[in-house]
Amino acid sequence: MSFNTFGRVFTFTTWGESHGPAIGVTVDGCPPGIALDEAFIQQFLDRRRPGTSKFTTQRQEPDQVRILSGVFEGRTTGTPIQLMIENTDQRSKDYGEIAQAFRPGHADIAYHLKYGIRDYRGGGRSSARETAARVAAGGVAQAVLRELAPDLRIIGYMAQMGRLHLDRANFDAAEIGNNPFFLPDASAVPAWEDYLNAVRKEQNSVGAAIEVLISGCPAGLGAPVYAKLDTDLAAAMMSINAVKGVEIGEGMAAAGLSGTENADEIRMGDEGPRFLSNHAGGILGGISTGQEIIVRFAVKPTSSILTPRQTINQKGEEIDLITKGRHDPCVGIRAVPVAEAMAACVILDHLMLDRAQTGGRRGLIG
Amino acid sequence: MSFNTFGRVFTFTTWGESHGPAIGVTVDGCPPGIALDEAFIQQFLDRRRPGTSKFTTQRQEPDQVRILSGVFEGRTTGTPIQLMIENTDQRSKDYGEIAQAFRPGHADIAYHLKYGIRDYRGGGRSSARETAARVAAGGVAQAVLRELAPDLRIIGYMAQMGRLHLDRANFDAAEIGNNPFFLPDASAVPAWEDYLNAVRKEQNSVGAAIEVLISGCPAGLGAPVYAKLDTDLAAAMMSINAVKGVEIGEGMAAAGLSGTENADEIRMGDEGPRFLSNHAGGILGGISTGQEIIVRFAVKPTSSILTPRQTINQKGEEIDLITKGRHDPCVGIRAVPVAEAMAACVILDHLMLDRAQTGGRRGLIG
Amino acid sequence: MSFNTFGRVFTFTTWGESHGPAIGVTVDGCPPGIALDEAFIQQFLDRRRPGTSKFTTQRQEPDQVRILSGVFEGRTTGTPIQLMIENTDQRSKDYGEIAQAFRPGHADIAYHLKYGIRDYRGGGRSSARETAARVAAGGVAQAVLRELAPDLRIIGYMAQMGRLHLDRANFDAAEIGNNPFFLPDASAVPAWEDYLNAVRKEQNSVGAAIEVLISGCPAGLGAPVYAKLDTDLAAAMMSINAVKGVEIGEGMAAAGLSGTENADEIRMGDEGPRFLSNHAGGILGGISTGQEIIVRFAVKPTSSILTPRQTINQKGEEIDLITKGRHDPCVGIRAVPVAEAMAACVILDHLMLDRAQTGGRRGLIG
Amino acid sequence: MSFNTFGRVFTFTTWGESHGPAIGVTVDGCPPGIALDEAFIQQFLDRRRPGTSKFTTQRQEPDQVRILSGVFEGRTTGTPIQLMIENTDQRSKDYGEIAQAFRPGHADIAYHLKYGIRDYRGGGRSSARETAARVAAGGVAQAVLRELAPDLRIIGYMAQMGRLHLDRANFDAAEIGNNPFFLPDASAVPAWEDYLNAVRKEQNSVGAAIEVLISGCPAGLGAPVYAKLDTDLAAAMMSINAVKGVEIGEGMAAAGLSGTENADEIRMGDEGPRFLSNHAGGILGGISTGQEIIVRFAVKPTSSILTPRQTINQKGEEIDLITKGRHDPCVGIRAVPVAEAMAACVILDHLMLDRAQTGGRRGLIG
Repeated sequence: MSFNTFGRVFTFTTWGESHGPAIGVTVDGCPPGIALDEAFIQQFLDRRRPGTSKFTTQRQEPDQVRILSGVFEGRTTGTPIQLMIENTDQRSKDYGEIAQAFRPGHADIAYHLKYGIRDYRGGGRSSARETAARVAAGGVAQAVLRELAPDLRIIGYMAQMGRLHLDRANFDAAEIGNNPFFLPDASAVPAWEDYLNAVRKEQNSVGAAIEVLISGCPAGLGAPVYAKLDTDLAAAMMSINAVKGVEIGEGMAAAGLSGTENADEIRMGDEGPRFLSNHAGGILGGISTGQEIIVRFAVKPTSSILTPRQTINQKGEEIDLITKGRHDPCVGIRAVPVAEAMAACVILDHLMLDRAQTGGRRGLIG
Repeated sequence: MSFNTFGRVFTFTTWGESHGPAIGVTVDGCPPGIALDEAFIQQFLDRRRPGTSKFTTQRQEPDQVRILSGVFEGRTTGTPIQLMIENTDQRSKDYGEIAQAFRPGHADIAYHLKYGIRDYRGGGRSSARETAARVAAGGVAQAVLRELAPDLRIIGYMAQMGRLHLDRANFDAAEIGNNPFFLPDASAVPAWEDYLNAVRKEQNSVGAAIEVLISGCPAGLGAPVYAKLDTDLAAAMMSINAVKGVEIGEGMAAAGLSGTENADEIRMGDEGPRFLSNHAGGILGGISTGQEIIVRFAVKPTSSILTPRQTINQKGEEIDLITKGRHDPCVGIRAVPVAEAMAACVILDHLMLDRAQTGGRRGLIG
Repeated sequence: MSFNTFGRVFTFTTWGESHGPAIGVTVDGCPPGIALDEAFIQQFLDRRRPGTSKFTTQRQEPDQVRILSGVFEGRTTGTPIQLMIENTDQRSKDYGEIAQAFRPGHADIAYHLKYGIRDYRGGGRSSARETAARVAAGGVAQAVLRELAPDLRIIGYMAQMGRLHLDRANFDAAEIGNNPFFLPDASAVPAWEDYLNAVRKEQNSVGAAIEVLISGCPAGLGAPVYAKLDTDLAAAMMSINAVKGVEIGEGMAAAGLSGTENADEIRMGDEGPRFLSNHAGGILGGISTGQEIIVRFAVKPTSSILTPRQTINQKGEEIDLITKGRHDPCVGIRAVPVAEAMAACVILDHLMLDRAQTGGRRGLIG
Repeated sequence: MSFNTFGRVFTFTTWGESHGPAIGVTVDGCPPGIALDEAFIQQFLDRRRPGTSKFTTQRQEPDQVRILSGVFEGRTTGTPIQLMIENTDQRSKDYGEIAQAFRPGHADIAYHLKYGIRDYRGGGRSSARETAARVAAGGVAQAVLRELAPDLRIIGYMAQMGRLHLDRANFDAAEIGNNPFFLPDASAVPAWEDYLNAVRKEQNSVGAAIEVLISGCPAGLGAPVYAKLDTDLAAAMMSINAVKGVEIGEGMAAAGLSGTENADEIRMGDEGPRFLSNHAGGILGGISTGQEIIVRFAVKPTSSILTPRQTINQKGEEIDLITKGRHDPCVGIRAVPVAEAMAACVILDHLMLDRAQTGGRRGLIG
């Protein structure tokens, strides 16, 4: 019920603001005896870290994670794991105008209306900096999944950036880590670079669509009716800053399909049921079927742009505002590791919930 | 945490199977002193009721709701409200083949794999019949909202059915109740009828997209970071049977926008901030801004079709299956009142959460 | 978070008022494939049923439970189990004075102050009739425990009634079911009868202390810090109507002990650690040790007595009130099966939570 | 559901081990705009701080709290508040024997059995050091209550230490802060000092009973049936280390009372209902009545004593163990500020829940 907690039995609670001394996360309910150290978590944070390419914010944050509790002699103890990341590059600048003005597309006005007070420095709590804490929590989940579901793989990548779409014919997962776009198509990278450079020069920004594939997921995860696996995945992705839509499998395109096109037919394979297609995205009735799980979501364009926009300030005065600062021209890019982290947490949570209820036993076929 | 419970302080827990003696819902946390009777709730159930047009299942269910607790002398008492609906038309037929076979696109195989046992009659718990219980809970929420947020209106309608799209130029909310499609455009009804008749004759089915507009919603609802209003709306809609995608405002289209197009500029109006556009769909940083909230979701085509499909049975034998029965050619149609109910529950829950935390006080502008 | 829900993964939600048409409970999260029928649950309800001896209320309620969902072909399906008990003997009497007056010791005034409205018939929601629903839920838990923890036994009995105390030297668990007091000492029954008869003739009532022993409980249940096994047991017992105190092991007497007296020393037995005493009541650091778990609680005397008491009514007038009706002279008696039910639910919930987190693996000794 | 989270809408999540680098707490759901700084919270920590008298552990911990998030320009923002306390005096000693042995009365064996791994340094997570984090959270709750319920006062004190009982005839709340026992009777202090000195010289320890009085609490707090105010208070106190019993009002003594003695009669006072006694401890049907709330609980004697005790080690060898270290001869003493903190959190949580559900409206009398 805690507003800043995600999960049911494997839970995490994030805290911290963009320009406070630190941000962090408490991971609770973690299975005991799992090998875990800072270096393992750090690799996930490094993928999300700002300042690593010219296409992300130039804020320089080492994002060095510290484990403050819950790990003893290299293994989790089953008690809460506190992960803290210090903020080091929160520039001490004059927030004069921003402090009183509501940046269009940002949470400023909403926080003001709700709370009557807000930490305006860098967006405070509404900053995407909070997602670093999620990535750290996701690192813990990945460490557990490595032991409990060794065949499971979670792969995130960009499927769209503005008017550019991933050409699925060229899909090569091995390329994702080799370019600043998490793009599984090396041949398209130059065009994406040119496009994003142009966007930035126009003092503009652009939206993105990210896809996450989860393969090797055991069948049977997800609990109808209000803890469906797809329900929790949708909540997980929609909770990420700037996300405006979430799809499972066919997603919104399902509205245009016929029943004969959509229902995935089933045959028997060597190791059990084999589906002839995957419009469902690996989930039926809220429960994983063993097929690949497919999640897709859209991130709106960065609202902080250098082009002046009309807005008001706290006094109710109409003003024009330029949002200076070190902003990503496409915030969607760094949402990739965040989405992988959220997916890892959801899957682990449901794996644990399932063994709570069923003890892991499964219905037989054949 | 209960798998079949939705909500945080205004909660509901549904129970029941398609072909059991009854289905129902326990609404908990309802404010006391609210005028409520069965007739008020019944009007919502009647909009969702099967057998009312040739485009919905011919199963004849009066769906008569009974209040078994929590209401005294016409008013809620603040204690749990039990709403029960008896199943009357669960035909006693031979389930022979279905009992052992997995209908493609249905939850059959997933339930079998997870639980090792399933009530196969009419889909059991995975049947969309469960949504009647949600609609009843939504009726309670509507009764409360009528008192706590009298300006609030929730309107659902069809925005797409297969290849037909709502022509927004013709939008007329007053027409929604006048046709079997919840379509806000009277002129398009004949074409929609022809199309769905054709789909049915082809022994096929078709998907749909539904839109819900929430106007008059107070600013300040939603609690960052993991109880965002859009997060909970996404979870609410994704939990509805057969839903594969959820969008807020621009939704997936946000991926294709630029920052200058997307950020909604702000001016001062007579009664406070006035937004010049609504790409955000009324929510910023997870908090309502006072603008109209726009939610859209896609429902996949009915998986039960008379066209034979390849599948397997519990023995692992490969078979061809025709799903007989009384099925909606477009299950998306009846999702409209369900979505309105879910929206009402989410909004009320957040209204109550907000008064828990802030006491309803608001930041001033001007 | 639902106010009327108890539990974390094995949860139940009760509903209903004393004089409404029915009461019931939704059990959620139950493991699938467990043998369960109405007769099994009924045996627990029969132990709590009113009207079975002259020492309990003469209200005649068959308390016949119906399973409305979640069980298929004699086994649980993993979906919510709805158990309903109709109220049949809610006398249609004139509630004139009671409707407006606040019975001392009852929840009447508190409900009025909080909700501004209350179902005054038989205490409405605050009636101990609600506990029948708990006993039904406990029956489900017992059915599951029979399979998951076959060595576990839960035994409740009276340890005190007013000035009479159980003579522990005579303790014989086999006698508990042979007398109307759930008393594990046949020799004391006549004295207890005489005493309670005298109390009743004086138009008075009397308090009680109940003890619950849980033997055969696996070590390792309970999750520090805020889901300790003793914390949840304390909450479970304190939630029962009229309970004013809860103790684990030594309980309040621990305040008077020295460290040398209190700490239970440990030796090695044939099957693992053997404790030389059990002051701790089977729980250390919130986790079961494998020793017998001992819970004790006090129930205040029935507040409804025929002796006139000073009170006020809703108009603020000072009045004298006699509470007529069919009341137990010692409500503590019927709390015995209720406490067993709550204990069963807590233990099962923690057994499931533990297998969620640890998968049931245990640290080795020796 | 998080194991280390307490509360429903005002929640806190603690983390940290006795000998890790730090401990802390995330307070979530806090109302915005509340004046709060480190000095305000520090005053509560200082009351619990070790090393302040010869009757508490000589571990020297400044217990300096740092606010890392959720407070901006001296006021709460409504976002999560992270409070961190560094551990400074965790001596780097040889844990040789303790690392493998199970100290009787401690959680060592239970943690080992459950998790298979434990941080044995100073008890790790099971150390009472965790309670510093609760006291910090309680400080936040007190800051909020000061604004939302200005008449509310929470007073904790010792009512018993071993064979010494508070003489209620001498009760003087003003004396509580003037002696190392939180004893509201100055005249008894010398005797308590002599007694505890003698206990310590005998290399022994002693239990205690603590009482908490909550005056000025609004009527109407608490939500039947499973979120009763007394249920949550019982859980709160039972979750404190070493607590073995909890009582509300008459507590366990209610078992010995008659109905005429127990039910608190009611008259009209100048400002509403006036109760002629308070056996109920201020709570009826789980809801506060406006009377003083009385909670009492027992703390077992410190298990760490210098007298050798029989136990076993991880290899299953039988050994005798002396628990050296810097231990409180009566851990109950420092439970006083911890209990006040827990009470503050429970009351605030229910005050917020109540305004969620009822909006704070109240039934009228007269």
